[in-house]
Amino acid sequence: MKIVLDAMGGDHAPEDIVRGAILASRSCRSELILVGDESRIRPLLQAEPPEREIQVVHSDDNISMDDPAGPSLRQRKGASMVLAANMVRDGKAQAFVCAGNTAALHQIALTGVGRLPGIKRPALAVVFPTHPTPSIALDMGANADCRPEWLLQWAVMGSVYARLVLGRDNPRVGLLSLGSEEGKGNSLVAAVTPMLKQSDLNFVGNVEPTGFFRSQVDVAVCDGFSGNLILKTGEAVAEWFMGQVRQAASSSPLARLGGWLLRPALRSLAQSHDHSEYGGAMFLGLRGLVIKCHGRARARTIENGIRVAEEILTSQLLTQIEQSLERETAPSKATPCPTD
Amino acid sequence: MKIVLDAMGGDHAPEDIVRGAILASRSCRSELILVGDESRIRPLLQAEPPEREIQVVHSDDNISMDDPAGPSLRQRKGASMVLAANMVRDGKAQAFVCAGNTAALHQIALTGVGRLPGIKRPALAVVFPTHPTPSIALDMGANADCRPEWLLQWAVMGSVYARLVLGRDNPRVGLLSLGSEEGKGNSLVAAVTPMLKQSDLNFVGNVEPTGFFRSQVDVAVCDGFSGNLILKTGEAVAEWFMGQVRQAASSSPLARLGGWLLRPALRSLAQSHDHSEYGGAMFLGLRGLVIKCHGRARARTIENGIRVAEEILTSQLLTQIEQSLERETAPSKATPCPTD
Repeated sequence: MKIVLDAMGGDHAPEDIVRGAILASRSCRSELILVGDESRIRPLLQAEPPEREIQVVHSDDNISMDDPAGPSLRQRKGASMVLAANMVRDGKAQAFVCAGNTAALHQIALTGVGRLPGIKRPALAVVFPTHPTPSIALDMGANADCRPEWLLQWAVMGSVYARLVLGRDNPRVGLLSLGSEEGKGNSLVAAVTPMLKQSDLNFVGNVEPTGFFRSQVDVAVCDGFSGNLILKTGEAVAEWFMGQVRQAASSSPLARLGGWLLRPALRSLAQSHDHSEYGGAMFLGLRGLVIKCHGRARARTIENGIRVAEEILTSQLLTQIEQSLERETAPSKATPCPTD
Repeated sequence: MKIVLDAMGGDHAPEDIVRGAILASRSCRSELILVGDESRIRPLLQAEPPEREIQVVHSDDNISMDDPAGPSLRQRKGASMVLAANMVRDGKAQAFVCAGNTAALHQIALTGVGRLPGIKRPALAVVFPTHPTPSIALDMGANADCRPEWLLQWAVMGSVYARLVLGRDNPRVGLLSLGSEEGKGNSLVAAVTPMLKQSDLNFVGNVEPTGFFRSQVDVAVCDGFSGNLILKTGEAVAEWFMGQVRQAASSSPLARLGGWLLRPALRSLAQSHDHSEYGGAMFLGLRGLVIKCHGRARARTIENGIRVAEEILTSQLLTQIEQSLERETAPSKATPCPTD
């Protein structure tokens, strides 16, 4: 297996991307390929030689965090992100890990890697540290305006992920909404509900964020606009909370002592909600595996992104998703014609 | 000033609603009125006599947390929620505080209390403990499918609230979206942006949840579906975090000692994100003041809900909102006719 990385994407590129690959080279079994400015990558590899050789593919151009997605990206044929996506399309790599511009990556992956047969829109899938067991939610930001049939496909893809990677026998699928009762929600929720009910999925109805974070479902689907706001609210509130805990732990001499004694336990809490432990989000629905790491990713996030890519490649997720989509859209599942 | 309460609404009604009114009677200057089952309310008032007399209005019926909003509510003329809303309409009270069924309250307030002139849809407005200064966001769940002009009106109402109640001179208004750059968002965001730009408001553009929780705006607007998911995600993540901190503080004998020393500081953190400290959300856009307390409200939440109602009545918020809406929709602001 080969995993390609955009060495130039992300706030701390190329240093942390290269260092992440070096860290991963100690444990992963895949061959790693770094795409980017060779004159900046080589010295980093020489300074801290990897356990196993890492291939470097040179590129002159790279897409910045501020570059808008749009037609102008078509001109950027030599950009590291484009070259890396094309390597997946051409079978030169099986997975692509990237911490760069999300909107640009979405567009480049769509045209470069391409969609799985029958998939209307790929979705950004994120595994959340819900308690007591993790759950997957999609779409977390790839598609702002959505059609009902897309959410059905995302539910199918999420279910396969929950079964193969999270190890759930019969994954419970929920529709994220503002009330758990049927009928509560917007017009999209109303349109998707009968489609999910009619499917072969284990659809358990609407789920509120409170229920989602209490692991009442294994898979949650929603439109990418709401999903992205949920994702970022979770991140913002967690950050707010850690700041407040830190402040509480410096509010008096006794609280400072308490905070010092509690530090090791709190450090693992800080890690448990830290994106670097999860490696990243996936664009599900593409012909190849594309993992999006956080734009602020440091080396450890990249290392985990590579680990996650390897796990997913081993699980044969994409093949299984393709088969499940075929079943879900087989003629017997289609609404009968009036003449039938 | 008179404030009416639905004594029968909420998970802990009537006990905690009555107790909340008793607590509030010690400090508030308004006359309080409890609407509900007199045979259950009177003994509670006798057991713990309030500082000042609290009026009781009997009702035989009450709307439960599970009653669906819809045409059937029209038959419930004797329900405590309906009687209380009608008292605001008839000028027998200036504010209504309720911990009952949100969807039913929205519908009953719309028909019972009525809208301010020109208001298309009332919105649920919530003040968040964003850091370093609190901010108001709307709509947090009253309207699932929204039109662009509604968001403009909510921005106007939120601005007046931020000026009068939060004390901001020139409140910064943001549109909640999945990217802070213009052009990122769904079709609703795209439609609202030019309307906000053209308004007299201090519109600062798109804001992500991360920016919102860092107080980058004083007022944030979005559709009620996304807004409600944000509200509940915030609540869920805060709950998740407090659970994890508790778990961290019992992970070893030293951590337990640390947790014990840190307890007073953490208790005030738990309070700072607790809805009971904020009293509740407001339905802004109605002819009278309606405060929605959390369904799980205990006495202290109700007490704070009454305090918030009194503060808002004193600020003349509704009169000011009405004047601002008139300005915002004055002929000079309208798009000129082609013949002009």
